[in-house]
Order: sequence, then structure tokens, then C-alpha cells
Amino acid sequence: MAIIGDIGERKLIEDFRSFIHPEGIVGPGDDAAVLRDGTVVTSDIVSFDRHFPAGMTYEQFGWYSAAVSFSDLAAMGARPTGFIASLALPADLDSQAAYDIMSGIDQCCEFCGTGIAGGDTKVGPGIVCGTALGTMDGRPPMLRSGARVGDVVAVTGPVGSPAAAFIALENGVDAEEAKESLYVPIPRVAEGSAMAGCGAVTSCMDLSDGLGTALNTICSSSRVGMDIELDFIPRGPWVDEMAELSGKPAKDLLLGWGGEYELLFTADRDRLDRLYDAEVEFSIIGMVNDSGKPELTDNGSRTVIPYGEY
Amino acid sequence: MAIIGDIGERKLIEDFRSFIHPEGIVGPGDDAAVLRDGTVVTSDIVSFDRHFPAGMTYEQFGWYSAAVSFSDLAAMGARPTGFIASLALPADLDSQAAYDIMSGIDQCCEFCGTGIAGGDTKVGPGIVCGTALGTMDGRPPMLRSGARVGDVVAVTGPVGSPAAAFIALENGVDAEEAKESLYVPIPRVAEGSAMAGCGAVTSCMDLSDGLGTALNTICSSSRVGMDIELDFIPRGPWVDEMAELSGKPAKDLLLGWGGEYELLFTADRDRLDRLYDAEVEFSIIGMVNDSGKPELTDNGSRTVIPYGEY
Repeated sequence: MAIIGDIGERKLIEDFRSFIHPEGIVGPGDDAAVLRDGTVVTSDIVSFDRHFPAGMTYEQFGWYSAAVSFSDLAAMGARPTGFIASLALPADLDSQAAYDIMSGIDQCCEFCGTGIAGGDTKVGPGIVCGTALGTMDGRPPMLRSGARVGDVVAVTGPVGSPAAAFIALENGVDAEEAKESLYVPIPRVAEGSAMAGCGAVTSCMDLSDGLGTALNTICSSSRVGMDIELDFIPRGPWVDEMAELSGKPAKDLLLGWGGEYELLFTADRDRLDRLYDAEVEFSIIGMVNDSGKPELTDNGSRTVIPYGEY
Repeated sequence: MAIIGDIGERKLIEDFRSFIHPEGIVGPGDDAAVLRDGTVVTSDIVSFDRHFPAGMTYEQFGWYSAAVSFSDLAAMGARPTGFIASLALPADLDSQAAYDIMSGIDQCCEFCGTGIAGGDTKVGPGIVCGTALGTMDGRPPMLRSGARVGDVVAVTGPVGSPAAAFIALENGVDAEEAKESLYVPIPRVAEGSAMAGCGAVTSCMDLSDGLGTALNTICSSSRVGMDIELDFIPRGPWVDEMAELSGKPAKDLLLGWGGEYELLFTADRDRLDRLYDAEVEFSIIGMVNDSGKPELTDNGSRTVIPYGEY
């Protein structure tokens, strides 16, 4: 029998889904679950081990731990209604660090228009399990499965800076604006809510696993393909500089890293005026086609965008 | 500055509550939170390190990790509407163990009349963070703060067996019925829902931190006292035998240990017929008075019941 490290998280989740009794309108497999009463809910575990890059403060770690869940609500278009903060913190942790983590969570909740409704605090390995709750206010949620041939593909903002921040950290470069995107990601809840309300968006997903993975996921969930123009992808601060420094092509930084919190979406090209009316900022990066997979056009040559990290 | 291990979980939670922006009708501090839209939600972290007694199977660990959260819903009287299962499991864990954990969670959800609506699976330190969601169906939630002088104090079933199980494990005694209560706790969701609907119950709390702690918590939340009769507390299997074997008084096993999942509640003595009509099984263990703290009557002598473990 195999161990988890060999099977991988994606396969394990697939296996789970083959035997559990699912609940809800959307159920396991989208950014967040939608229960039969319309409650939208999502839960994420972040840990000192895996989600605490060099230079991050405890307050930023707290913000981050809440932001990842609010980003999942944003991808559905839900309006946040509460947050549950469960902490398992090392016994030898300075108590000020614990207050800073909770203060960061609290600030992120306030930014998202809600507050802390409950939680649990225990001694443990240094993890935060955050649960964000929201409501669709009667609107249909934005799913990963609604993209249609002929739709435009767009993102709500520039990408690549978290990847640039990692390279900066490895190489001792300041690159403050890039690190800010890594340490204090902004969950696009206002944008998501406006997008869900305007009636133009056909699918949506957040970029927490990277743009390349998100493009692949929407294509497979919607059974479509995409033609993405590399030059159309908006680049965040320090992407070009860190690509050059590391000798990696910029497209790797733009497509192959996680830790991004902009939203990827597809929209009906005849209804783009509704997105402008809703004052949602976005950049069109390509079109939906029937090829079955996302492809990248770069200087006239076209390649399939791989799943996962490069 | 102190470390968390010195400050303790209870004080840390109090400190958090002094500066966060709370959300919801009930907010942090009861068994579960109730949001403004009536959603009831609670989240618990259980870990291989702290919640995996000898002899427990992975399937039972999964059941347990869901049961603790459903028990919190039960204490509010909520009807479960969904469960979010977030797992962080060691990379070297056998994948069959992961399937067993998820299957145990799934079975507990089914027992509670709901299913798995979402989650997250990652490599990590061996923890499950479960979030249970429910609805009050328009009824008011049962809180810890509603007990009134003259109410009866009651529990939904026998206590002490999880404590007996720990002693049995330490001493190599089989004591199967006691261990069953430790490995497969039954969340009293049907009972809690019936209790909230009958209009007789004035306060309620689950026994996950032990009967002594629960009695103290309801007294301080409700600003009342209690007179509890030791002989009235129903004893689970193996309590007397393991008290004798360990040389501990039986009251320590009944009052001073956690891991119990019956419900403690207070009820209007003039409305007890409504509890009988609702077919809720319970045992009256004492009365609410105005002494400000819970006291135990044992063979005519009366002592204050201490907070926390003995």
C-alpha cells in the first residue's frame, strides 16, 4: 500500500470523493461548498512549516491564514458573513506572537466586511485552520464549470509577484512590492461579489495554486480549451527583474507558482459592459475555445500550459 | 513576555476576545457560533498527538474528529446541514489510514443526518480540522447563559466511562464498553434538536471538557449556583470498577475528565412534561440555586466542584 507522500494530495482528494456521501448544492471540488440553504463555506489549514516565508511577521501570517479562505469565498462571489479561527500553537510560542496572529486574522476579517464568530485555541504544531462563511444573497454561485466556447478569459489583477518574492528572498533582494503580495495577499471579495451580481461571468476560480493550474482546472471542469496570450497577462512588480536574475523565463513566474490571490474568470463577451458597469477591474488574457486544454501563445509559437508547478 | 504553555488556553482565548471584532448573534464563547442569518457553525482541531488513545483505529479517529464538532451543534440544538473536513496528514502515512479517517468522518456525518460538503487535504503534522454547520430552523439556540434559580440540572446519559477507559488502558484491562465510549463518542444531535424545540430547556452545554467544567461554566455564564447530588449522576460502564482499581474516588471519574459527549442542561421544572413528550432521555442530577457556584452533595457533606481536571 502506498503512502500519502507518493499518492499526492490531488489523487487522495479524488479517492475520497469516490466513496464519501456528498452534501450541498455544489459540494466538494469547487473553491468553496454551497449548502442547500445557500450558505457558502470553505476551510483551509495553514502552517508555520509550509506557509511562513522568511520575513513574514506573525500578524501577516494571521492575515494570510484568513485571506486564503476569503479568497475562496470571493471566487464563488459570496458576501462574507463570518469567520471561525481555530489555532493549534506551540506551547513555547511567545504569547505576543499568538496575539499578533489573531490580530492579523481580525484585520483581514474587517477588510472583508465581517468579523470573528468563533473558534478554538489549543496547544499544537503551529497551524491555523480558518473557516470562512458567506452568502450568495440569492444569486447563483460562480463555478469552475461554466466556461463556454467564445467567452473571454480574464484576471482581476497582475500576477507573478509572489513568485518574484520567493526568488528575491532566495537571492537577498529587497523587492518590497513583490514581498508585500506574498505577505499580505488581498482577497478579492468585493470584486467577486460584484462579478457574481453582474450576470456576465460564466466561471471563476482563485489563483492560490497558480495561474497555470487554474487555467487547466477551469478547462477540465468546463470541458473547454483556451488560447492565452502571454503578452496579455498583466505582470506584477519585480516579475521581469526576478525572471532575469534567476534565469527563468517570465512565463514560469506568471503561470507556474501558487500563492496568488487574484481571480481568474471567463465572461460572456457580449456582456462585458456589465463588468465595466460593476466597476470591476480586469485584464483579458485570452479566449475560450474547443481545444480541450489551455494553450499559451508566445511570440507566435503555441504550447500547452502544464498542470501544477513548472 | 510569557509563553503560551504558561498562559494556558483559557486565558489566551479570553485575551483574544478582548480585542477582536466579534461577529454573529452568539459569537465566540459558546459551544458554537450563530451567525446573523441563523447559520450555526463550529470548528475543532483534533490531532494524532493529543486525541489518539491507544487501541483507537484510524476510522474511529475520523469518527471522533467529526463527532466533537457535531456535539457542539447538538449543545446549541442545531440540525446539522453539512461538514467540512480539512486534513493535514504526514507524508509517510499509509494511504489506507487516510481512507479510513475519511470513512470514519463520513459515517459520523451520516449518523448526524448530513454529509461532507467540502474540505482540504494537505501533507502536514497529523491533524483534522472539522467544521460542522447547522441551522436552528428558526428556533432560539440553547445557550450556556440561560439557567435560572429553581431549574433542574440534568444530563442526557451516563458519564465517567471515558475516564474509566483511560484507567483501563493504563492498567491493561479490557473494559470494552468503556473504551467504546472513548473511541466512538455519540454526538447527541437528535436529543439536542428535540430539546431546543420543546421550550423547556433554559441552558445547555456539551461535556467535552468534563462535567465539572461544564457545571462551572453554566454557573458562571448564567450567574447562578447549583446543588448537585453525587448519587444522582448516572454512572457509565466500568466507572466503579476502575475507580476501585485506581484508588481514585468515583466522583473524580464522573466530574474531572473530558472526552464525554453527553449534554448537560438546565430546564424549567414546570415544563418537564415537554421533555418527556419530546422523548428525550435524561437524568436529573440537581437543582439551580443562587449560591454562585456548583456544589456537590456526597453523603450529606457539601463541597464546591472545582473547575477543570482534578
